[in-house]
Amino acid sequence: MTVGPRTGAQVTLEALLASGVDVCFANPGTTEIEVVAALSRVPAMRSILGLFEGVVTGAADGYGRMAGHPAATLLHLGPGLGNGLANLHNARRARTPIVNLVGDHASHHQRYDAPLQSDIESLARPVSGWYQRTSRREDLARDAAAAVVAAQGPPGAVATLVVPADLWWSTSPEVELVPRVAPKPLSEVGDEAVAEVEAALRSGGPAALLMGAGANCEPALRAASRVAAATGARLLGETFSARLERGGGLPELERVAYLGEFATAQLQGLRTLVLVEARAPVSFFAYPERPSLLAPEGCRAVSLSQPGQDSVAALLELCERLHAGALGLPPPVVTRGARPTGAIDVTTFAAAVAAVLPEGAIVSDEANTSGTMLLGATASAPRHDWLSLTGGAIGQGLPVATGAAVACPDRPVLCLEADGSAMYTLQALWTQARESLNVTTVLLNNGSYAILEFELNRLASAAGGGGARQLLSLAGPALDWVALARGLGVAASRATTAEELTGQLSRAMTEPGPALIEAVLHGA
Amino acid sequence: MTVGPRTGAQVTLEALLASGVDVCFANPGTTEIEVVAALSRVPAMRSILGLFEGVVTGAADGYGRMAGHPAATLLHLGPGLGNGLANLHNARRARTPIVNLVGDHASHHQRYDAPLQSDIESLARPVSGWYQRTSRREDLARDAAAAVVAAQGPPGAVATLVVPADLWWSTSPEVELVPRVAPKPLSEVGDEAVAEVEAALRSGGPAALLMGAGANCEPALRAASRVAAATGARLLGETFSARLERGGGLPELERVAYLGEFATAQLQGLRTLVLVEARAPVSFFAYPERPSLLAPEGCRAVSLSQPGQDSVAALLELCERLHAGALGLPPPVVTRGARPTGAIDVTTFAAAVAAVLPEGAIVSDEANTSGTMLLGATASAPRHDWLSLTGGAIGQGLPVATGAAVACPDRPVLCLEADGSAMYTLQALWTQARESLNVTTVLLNNGSYAILEFELNRLASAAGGGGARQLLSLAGPALDWVALARGLGVAASRATTAEELTGQLSRAMTEPGPALIEAVLHGA
Repeated sequence: MTVGPRTGAQVTLEALLASGVDVCFANPGTTEIEVVAALSRVPAMRSILGLFEGVVTGAADGYGRMAGHPAATLLHLGPGLGNGLANLHNARRARTPIVNLVGDHASHHQRYDAPLQSDIESLARPVSGWYQRTSRREDLARDAAAAVVAAQGPPGAVATLVVPADLWWSTSPEVELVPRVAPKPLSEVGDEAVAEVEAALRSGGPAALLMGAGANCEPALRAASRVAAATGARLLGETFSARLERGGGLPELERVAYLGEFATAQLQGLRTLVLVEARAPVSFFAYPERPSLLAPEGCRAVSLSQPGQDSVAALLELCERLHAGALGLPPPVVTRGARPTGAIDVTTFAAAVAAVLPEGAIVSDEANTSGTMLLGATASAPRHDWLSLTGGAIGQGLPVATGAAVACPDRPVLCLEADGSAMYTLQALWTQARESLNVTTVLLNNGSYAILEFELNRLASAAGGGGARQLLSLAGPALDWVALARGLGVAASRATTAEELTGQLSRAMTEPGPALIEAVLHGA
Repeated sequence: MTVGPRTGAQVTLEALLASGVDVCFANPGTTEIEVVAALSRVPAMRSILGLFEGVVTGAADGYGRMAGHPAATLLHLGPGLGNGLANLHNARRARTPIVNLVGDHASHHQRYDAPLQSDIESLARPVSGWYQRTSRREDLARDAAAAVVAAQGPPGAVATLVVPADLWWSTSPEVELVPRVAPKPLSEVGDEAVAEVEAALRSGGPAALLMGAGANCEPALRAASRVAAATGARLLGETFSARLERGGGLPELERVAYLGEFATAQLQGLRTLVLVEARAPVSFFAYPERPSLLAPEGCRAVSLSQPGQDSVAALLELCERLHAGALGLPPPVVTRGARPTGAIDVTTFAAAVAAVLPEGAIVSDEANTSGTMLLGATASAPRHDWLSLTGGAIGQGLPVATGAAVACPDRPVLCLEADGSAMYTLQALWTQARESLNVTTVLLNNGSYAILEFELNRLASAAGGGGARQLLSLAGPALDWVALARGLGVAASRATTAEELTGQLSRAMTEPGPALIEAVLHGA
């Protein structure tokens, strides 16, 4: 089927729409101006402005994690892509489906090396599972559809499509519509893999299942819990999950610790580690004289499934083979902890979240050092999703919360955000205000890059002098997050006690639209 | 000569210091923690924290433009580099000397693909004139020194040095000091090039000299002015200069217009275009049916010199050959315009700047659409330097002003900043406050991406519907720049009339430390 005259920009948007992509997070420039114009003619495509590209790509990440299908971005040449790279890096690690649309100079203009010209492919490749530059007008619809297919996987990927401006402003008298390609199904796990895991679990000795990626959903967790109950294996979770379903009586995972020495202690004595869409645990950073691989020597890692495979079916097959009962581990009781009192510290902060977390909440967790007690405190909270910092590139939390709220407008989103990390992409608050998104941010103000102070203190060589300390402090001047949030159009308040924090949090999560609570940590 | 035991991080800092680099703009992470520790032992290296990497790289750009020698950056693996890429792109276009120091995972850790692992080289190459990864502890000092040499040029360049964390934490019992390498002199322009330019200028017909890069300094401008007086040639300047010396009676350049159609009209009729460290003018963006090259057909471009060559000597030689008089064009009179009154618009804004610009000021100009009258209004102001957006990647102005103020602590810095651009790197204000830098920012609030509204209005295909307009508006919610500046620790005020703007500007430029004035543009 063909349709009548339209610009290349309109063709691109319509092809994305036909493939099921109906949200575009955008920070456009002149090379993308025809796409901006076309948005008026393609009203089914919702466009959402970010005032910095890291907001755009991080929001696309949050959207993709929750929607399960991609949003598009719209970025302005190499520098616009550059600004979005850190959160695309996180999205790549999360295997989030994203159609990453980048405009470029018109084809005939590129040889003149105009000021904004750069090597876009070199910048894009490290974060992209799929990369394509469209070079002919007639390929626009096909390439856009191919980008959606590549992004969807499974597993999901960042699919970068670069389009020169002249293709977007070109007009085609007749355009052939590209039919929607159905998403590929998950691929099956072979019998041998399941049999090998069964044998490993039957061979005796302490064992654990490490759940990762797409295996962090309810059916996989329930099946894994049955395996654990039948074999005595522990249920471990990745340190940073793209999306973890938890609370409400779901089997709880024991998260592999962030710090290598804690993780090593945690995994001590394991003889068998079954990897379910996970990789063998690796230290987040390397340290002198410490191992990169965290599992003990003599522990055998056996892979049940890879991302993109049907882990639920494989786990159910494993249950059959192991004659596992139908119920699995006893579910944690759903309870509310008491409202905390006193100063705000890691414990009372976690207790405040646990006391008020609503049913169906989505938590975007970039609390970093302030968040160490969160998972423990919220294990018996009502059902919710937990989104973590997957790639280590800080500045993810606020944008991911933004995109998650776009994907799930009827669910409350709670963003737990460290001050140092928040500064990278604070512009996200403005987008939350413009779109009236239901995001409540708890901004944890400890006045420092606390994780780096911790690392500095661990160094044998640390002199601890002023030059070093000064470089890790966010005080002098202190950041005023209430002022910053209000400057970006978001209602804000400050909490200096656990009672204030809990009260403000409870109110903010039930009111529509965004809000920010600056939680001043004790001693900050 | 050798010195006693020290970490690789200390060796690196000392090698940079020995090569004349004594400022490090930093946003470190765990892989750079040994450098942070070493800063306490190398107090001569001034470290300045940026809360986002675009601030770090943009400040290094501003520093290098004004100091004439490089500062170092300190960035955290691929994602940290990614966040700094846009302003490194601008720095590359400005040919600013920068030693771009990037930490990476320890060598033995890289094969495990830990979360922050990425292809740093692929990200760095497009912005780097020189790239090196140090792989042996004993090469640290040599590589750091080589990075400084590569950065200095001339012409200047971004020299990226990647250092794995294990080299920084390694300790050497004895370190051989690397002697400082003297910067390379400018290379000479050959006689043939000068003779060819002479012949072209003597051949008759309308001619112009287009001054670029290092030829925007006083001696080159004065010599070019003599050539112009002797031949009747016009003196043109690039649309965006890295650093232009002007005011105080210096010969004024006629800037090539930003918009292609205006530039084409401006260059109409030229028969000879002499390029002095400049390239033949190219349209900033391409447009349908419009040429990329802006000089008229039949206009011959003749290159006198390239960046890195001794343009002053070549221009003086040209003066000799042309028997040019000693004085050149009559210098413009240094005058102060009257203080403007009424609403703030592009004219009264420019008049306000012209009325108060102090002797010796450094202007970081990212005023974009609001700045069209600035150069005309300030041509007869006291002597000052003008720093422009060289690479088109917006978000340059605030960081460049920051770095310029570090390089020139005794000079007042005026940052003229569009609201849309300011949002990309507003974190720079915090660094200005922490370092008590003498930067006055005029934040031009017109509530929109005005340049894109302009481009949208030029499109034949523009429907002008709500979807498109909404994507270019910064209102809803309006940004409150007074709140944002105060939240970042910078004193701020709001001006809604030209009288208020001039008065606040006059005060702020004489008071120490940073200040921000939000200028609300008429109709915004």
